[in-house]
Amino acid sequence: MINTHYQTLPDNYLFAAIARKVREFEAGHPGQPVIRMGIGDVTRPLAPAVVEAMREAAAEMGCAETFRGYDDAQGYPFLKEAVAAHYARLGAAAAPDEILISDGAKSDAGNLLDIFSPDCVALIPDPVYPVYVDTNRMDGRAVRFMDATPDNGFLPMPDASAQADIIYLCSPNNPTGAAYNRDQLAAWVAYARERGAVILFDAAYEAFAGEAGIPRSIYEIEGARECAIEVGSLSKMAGFTGVRCGWTLVPPELVRDGVSLRQMWLRRQNTKFNGVSYITQRGAAAALSPEGLAQCRENIDYYRENARLIAGTMDALGIAYTGGRNSPYIWLECPGGDSWAFFDRLLERAQVVGTPGAGFGQNGEGFFRLSSFGTHENTRKAMRRFRELGAGG
Amino acid sequence: MINTHYQTLPDNYLFAAIARKVREFEAGHPGQPVIRMGIGDVTRPLAPAVVEAMREAAAEMGCAETFRGYDDAQGYPFLKEAVAAHYARLGAAAAPDEILISDGAKSDAGNLLDIFSPDCVALIPDPVYPVYVDTNRMDGRAVRFMDATPDNGFLPMPDASAQADIIYLCSPNNPTGAAYNRDQLAAWVAYARERGAVILFDAAYEAFAGEAGIPRSIYEIEGARECAIEVGSLSKMAGFTGVRCGWTLVPPELVRDGVSLRQMWLRRQNTKFNGVSYITQRGAAAALSPEGLAQCRENIDYYRENARLIAGTMDALGIAYTGGRNSPYIWLECPGGDSWAFFDRLLERAQVVGTPGAGFGQNGEGFFRLSSFGTHENTRKAMRRFRELGAGG
Repeated sequence: MINTHYQTLPDNYLFAAIARKVREFEAGHPGQPVIRMGIGDVTRPLAPAVVEAMREAAAEMGCAETFRGYDDAQGYPFLKEAVAAHYARLGAAAAPDEILISDGAKSDAGNLLDIFSPDCVALIPDPVYPVYVDTNRMDGRAVRFMDATPDNGFLPMPDASAQADIIYLCSPNNPTGAAYNRDQLAAWVAYARERGAVILFDAAYEAFAGEAGIPRSIYEIEGARECAIEVGSLSKMAGFTGVRCGWTLVPPELVRDGVSLRQMWLRRQNTKFNGVSYITQRGAAAALSPEGLAQCRENIDYYRENARLIAGTMDALGIAYTGGRNSPYIWLECPGGDSWAFFDRLLERAQVVGTPGAGFGQNGEGFFRLSSFGTHENTRKAMRRFRELGAGG
Repeated sequence: MINTHYQTLPDNYLFAAIARKVREFEAGHPGQPVIRMGIGDVTRPLAPAVVEAMREAAAEMGCAETFRGYDDAQGYPFLKEAVAAHYARLGAAAAPDEILISDGAKSDAGNLLDIFSPDCVALIPDPVYPVYVDTNRMDGRAVRFMDATPDNGFLPMPDASAQADIIYLCSPNNPTGAAYNRDQLAAWVAYARERGAVILFDAAYEAFAGEAGIPRSIYEIEGARECAIEVGSLSKMAGFTGVRCGWTLVPPELVRDGVSLRQMWLRRQNTKFNGVSYITQRGAAAALSPEGLAQCRENIDYYRENARLIAGTMDALGIAYTGGRNSPYIWLECPGGDSWAFFDRLLERAQVVGTPGAGFGQNGEGFFRLSSFGTHENTRKAMRRFRELGAGG
């Protein structure tokens, strides 16, 4: 009667395990406040333009003349147009009606799998955001891993011998902070087109991609519209982790087995989803307005300053790492090797919480993720303690 | 590569087909405003307590000290406790941690199927809210229908010979407006327990159940905690169709194949969902506060007045119907028989939009759904036109 594939899932979700360890430490050490650089949650408040737009929208909902019920179009035109304008700024043409608004990238990345057969094969980097793997396993779908290691700069490239129907690419990457350049993404697009595979491109961290030659959307690559679905999010770009808004773009050119995947996704969402709060959508549109973008940019720059501080500390200690430049994450080689042991040591000796690489897959062992989403003060304090521990951790 | 079950779905979603017909009529008759009594969307503005709570919450999100990121608990305690208090008022004990907060009943009703095997059998009333059927077909799950007809007052009762793993009950019902009494629901609970089946109880319309002996929650029935999942919603109760908030309660007593369904649902949501906006949750909690409940009750009473007006018109015309007492819907026997023909006639001659029963399943043919969610003025005007058409439509 039950979906038995759930029994193949690992017992504990990574961040739940971390939260439990931190709770236990705090209970045992009441005088030692812990600095959280683990989970990828933002801390800066919402931009004033966003708050104002949401407050106004809430007031509109309180008046009969301006009240809004169901949004039966999977997103209001004002927000779809704002997202389309975002793509236009990146040099990636997108029509508003290709964009379906959602409550965030995590929902969409999971729910998108509904439109694929459980018999296809998912190609997923290792290490990886665990939900890509778990959502496929929940459907009983076969998962093949591609190695992301220091040898390839944590950026696996196509392997002609690998089987793949659905290819997960996240760039800038969570957890490694590595980011594909234009030529690398073009190679993936060529590979997917040749195979008839579909790329699921997770662009959640695009706002951190600042260097020239690092695409912020897969659609900056020619030919991507025939082979790629992109999931976008306001979580990092505008601090919406607690507001919940994102989108998925499925170009009409994307046809498999003679069927438009855009039509399938629209059908999925019309049947199992009822849209996003009008208030949230007004906030999201404000975040993508010129005023909102400038305010959100200040927050991104704030986190970038933290990332520079962390990277500088690693440089000073001679610890190898990736990320921190086009990404809020610093992915470092674990002093001592064992990532959960390093987690425990860092928590106990420095009261700093990071994320053990082992939680992101086999190839994550030996690595550790630090996030730049804290305050300057906490980041500085954590890095001071890190230095005191020394390169040996 | 694609999920081929999607190709078994009917081409058009009911409300999309209606919207198209209305658009076409309006384009051809610019001077004739249409009164919408079709889709089940509310029109009354949000309660002042809800608006105020959401405006405050938005302001909190704009300050570093009160900003909130991810809600990693599938709902804040303040809201889960408010929902638990709601159940306590109904005489149905529920612990806060049994309740997972979501973006609405439609999402939950669809997503819950993830935890069931595609090999089980879904037992679904006919007529029915179409998404129960479509969501099962998307998984390739077998659907058996149970007849809801005038003979059983549109309230099908257990049939010992029928196969059923998942049983859909919606009471007060969409589309028929019929509501099970305590004894009837107790018979369903006994049947499900005996079979090891699971009842998915859709309580979206519970706020309209006003008569004594009509349960507002399946958990008012003894033994339901071992066999029923309940989906609740603020859409009708508090006018949240455009705000999006609901919940699903899976009691820990509900175990199948040796596995806790509550644990499976929690896992599903932790993996494919990232919670509901803090702002929305504050609004929902305000709707469930004493002040909010009183304000929401005024809106429900407003719609009830419309329902009485519609029912009175049907009485005067000698048209048979159910609903209108414990439900915002009036389900009437179509003058003329053919429900789409009646839809067209009503639109053309009276400029009133309803929902043809045929859209809700085979047994819906010959019936027509009118909703009481409009304004008094429009409802009165529509009923005047209805009377002018006469009992023959």
